[in-house]
Amino acid sequence: MDYSKLALEYHKKWRGKIEMVSRVPLTTKDDLSIAYTPGVAEPCLQIKDNPDLSYTLTRRWNTIAVVTDGTAVLGLGDIGPLAGMPVMEGKCVLFKQFGDIDAIPLCIDSKNTDDIVNTIRLLQGSFGGINLEDIAAPRCFEIEAKLKGVCDIPIFHDDQHGTAVVALAALQNALKITDKRPCDVSIVISGAGAAGTSIAKLILKSGFSDVTLCDIEGALTKERTYTNNELQALADETNPQNKKGTLADVLVGADIFIGVSAPNIVTEEMIQSMAKSPIVFAMANPTPEIHPDLARRAGARIVATGRSDFPNQINNVLAFPGIFRGALDCRAADINDEMKLAAAHALAALVTDQQRTDGIVIPSPFYPDICQEVAKAVVRAAIASGVARIIPEQ
Amino acid sequence: MDYSKLALEYHKKWRGKIEMVSRVPLTTKDDLSIAYTPGVAEPCLQIKDNPDLSYTLTRRWNTIAVVTDGTAVLGLGDIGPLAGMPVMEGKCVLFKQFGDIDAIPLCIDSKNTDDIVNTIRLLQGSFGGINLEDIAAPRCFEIEAKLKGVCDIPIFHDDQHGTAVVALAALQNALKITDKRPCDVSIVISGAGAAGTSIAKLILKSGFSDVTLCDIEGALTKERTYTNNELQALADETNPQNKKGTLADVLVGADIFIGVSAPNIVTEEMIQSMAKSPIVFAMANPTPEIHPDLARRAGARIVATGRSDFPNQINNVLAFPGIFRGALDCRAADINDEMKLAAAHALAALVTDQQRTDGIVIPSPFYPDICQEVAKAVVRAAIASGVARIIPEQ
Repeated sequence: MDYSKLALEYHKKWRGKIEMVSRVPLTTKDDLSIAYTPGVAEPCLQIKDNPDLSYTLTRRWNTIAVVTDGTAVLGLGDIGPLAGMPVMEGKCVLFKQFGDIDAIPLCIDSKNTDDIVNTIRLLQGSFGGINLEDIAAPRCFEIEAKLKGVCDIPIFHDDQHGTAVVALAALQNALKITDKRPCDVSIVISGAGAAGTSIAKLILKSGFSDVTLCDIEGALTKERTYTNNELQALADETNPQNKKGTLADVLVGADIFIGVSAPNIVTEEMIQSMAKSPIVFAMANPTPEIHPDLARRAGARIVATGRSDFPNQINNVLAFPGIFRGALDCRAADINDEMKLAAAHALAALVTDQQRTDGIVIPSPFYPDICQEVAKAVVRAAIASGVARIIPEQ
Repeated sequence: MDYSKLALEYHKKWRGKIEMVSRVPLTTKDDLSIAYTPGVAEPCLQIKDNPDLSYTLTRRWNTIAVVTDGTAVLGLGDIGPLAGMPVMEGKCVLFKQFGDIDAIPLCIDSKNTDDIVNTIRLLQGSFGGINLEDIAAPRCFEIEAKLKGVCDIPIFHDDQHGTAVVALAALQNALKITDKRPCDVSIVISGAGAAGTSIAKLILKSGFSDVTLCDIEGALTKERTYTNNELQALADETNPQNKKGTLADVLVGADIFIGVSAPNIVTEEMIQSMAKSPIVFAMANPTPEIHPDLARRAGARIVATGRSDFPNQINNVLAFPGIFRGALDCRAADINDEMKLAAAHALAALVTDQQRTDGIVIPSPFYPDICQEVAKAVVRAAIASGVARIIPEQ
């Protein structure tokens, strides 16, 4: 289906996909006196004396900002903050629909790391968390790291971590189906941007050891030099066999391909060169690294993509609503690796044996209770790892 | 009624007075593909090519930010950004209820003018307008002036201009009742903060000539020296008779008292010293400069306050929803003096002859169609003064 024309008409019709509404009655002078002046002075003073009450007397407990600089919007690249807004509004709709979270889109007109960090830092008291969105690598790494240092609310760059959580969940089910163990498989990741680096880090954390990243120049090796610290650190941690060469070179004999890179860069021959029953996650959007039908024909045992019109869609919406729901529910100070791993496990566990038999490794976004299941696991991990500030009632 | 306890319970119950909701259906994969990826790419690209489309393809056309630094919240003073949030949420509720405007509260954790200006400047593309709220004078003047220089959306500090618009509207009706002309009356304003200075400037624009401001040291005269430019400029423009002395001194023989200062600083004797049939707007909140009953007993012909439990409440909610509604409807680049004067005239015109006979100078906030009437007048003034960027359909 051609969604472009449909989507344009739809956006013209709706003139904005989100709306701020009042939750309170306001039809009498007394209503005004309680919601606003003079009554509102009392909750203000209570918060002044005890800042934690900002989480109970205002909407902060359920409100996050969805923040972009418009530099890496979808597959469109640097289209700027104004043009990024339809995506941010869409993200806010997803937060509400799937996580019952009030998400406010903020598009920042700067490509300067400190500008972006300062803007968010100064506004952090208005929010219970910050979802960074569509910010170009490597700036996104620096912005997230700096923000984690200066904010006491969770900071989460979804293009990195949401993608990593869902990919890891799918990977866990794919291993179950193919009866392989994390410590025994070799993985090749194509794409060393926000998603690729985060996937690499999270799967290393989860017990995989043989992970090789490729960027446009080929495998990340310890010999190459890198302009960004993120890649340097990853080159040190990955590629234990010190494979060299192109993506085609390093795919030979690999068990798993994870692509977050570019359309049509993987051929049937490359899939055929992999180990037996290869797992292929070709997640470039909207055109995968290899078409799922070709991948299957070439022998892929499990195929996943980023697209909704094929089975096994690696879709961030499976993760971010539940991760933020959990983080908000326990007023987490951070969204750490333990919480991300817990989210991935919870998500993987939603796939049934029967579905796995059918080659399904990840649930559909409309599968019921995904958010709640992920959120529960995230809360438990937050408590266990010491970042939860309250224990929510279950 | 004691609103403090009621308001605290109410805020605990509601846990936030505003909520961000989705305006669009989202129950199928197709819905996802149109509201979000891949369909959303098309409206993004359209905005990239034509930034004006941010007003038709996103909610920007109806969205403003309500921004504070928490330094002058209600009568509570500098209580900080967290503690200011209940007021900002309340303001957003009023914007929605009375103006059908999506207002987003942003509390900035800085008292530095440039920090505040930069934060708003970088976010301006996410909004159709900025309502500054509860920022202490004189910083509020500098912030507003700088923002007007760097933003192409309307910037409006409601504590200044909203108050001035409503006070001017009430003043116009009070003059009708007392059959006086702007050029013939002498006015004394007590309070030279955000509200007092803005009232002085707007009533000078509207044709009043004999205006004297008092701050805590007494009348502003050309001889005194001032640390802030705003007061220096006002001292040059006001007090044509060069009155000197205390508030009590300058009130002798004055026709009109406008108080935006401190509780109980005006006595019956001071009212008695004024000219015949004096007009008394004692707007200090929650305790007026003089109690309305005392003012009347001392001979005040017209009395207005800031309180909802007396007649003639000078309430900003009469102005800001219609002013922003009008500014958004014509996509105004600014909210200028012409638009403020038009708003005041429209508001004054909503009081009927019968009401004026009864001493009523300003409508109740719940009088129907206030916002629409003010908005229509604001749009006309914006078009006439050249700041409207579109002509709205009526």
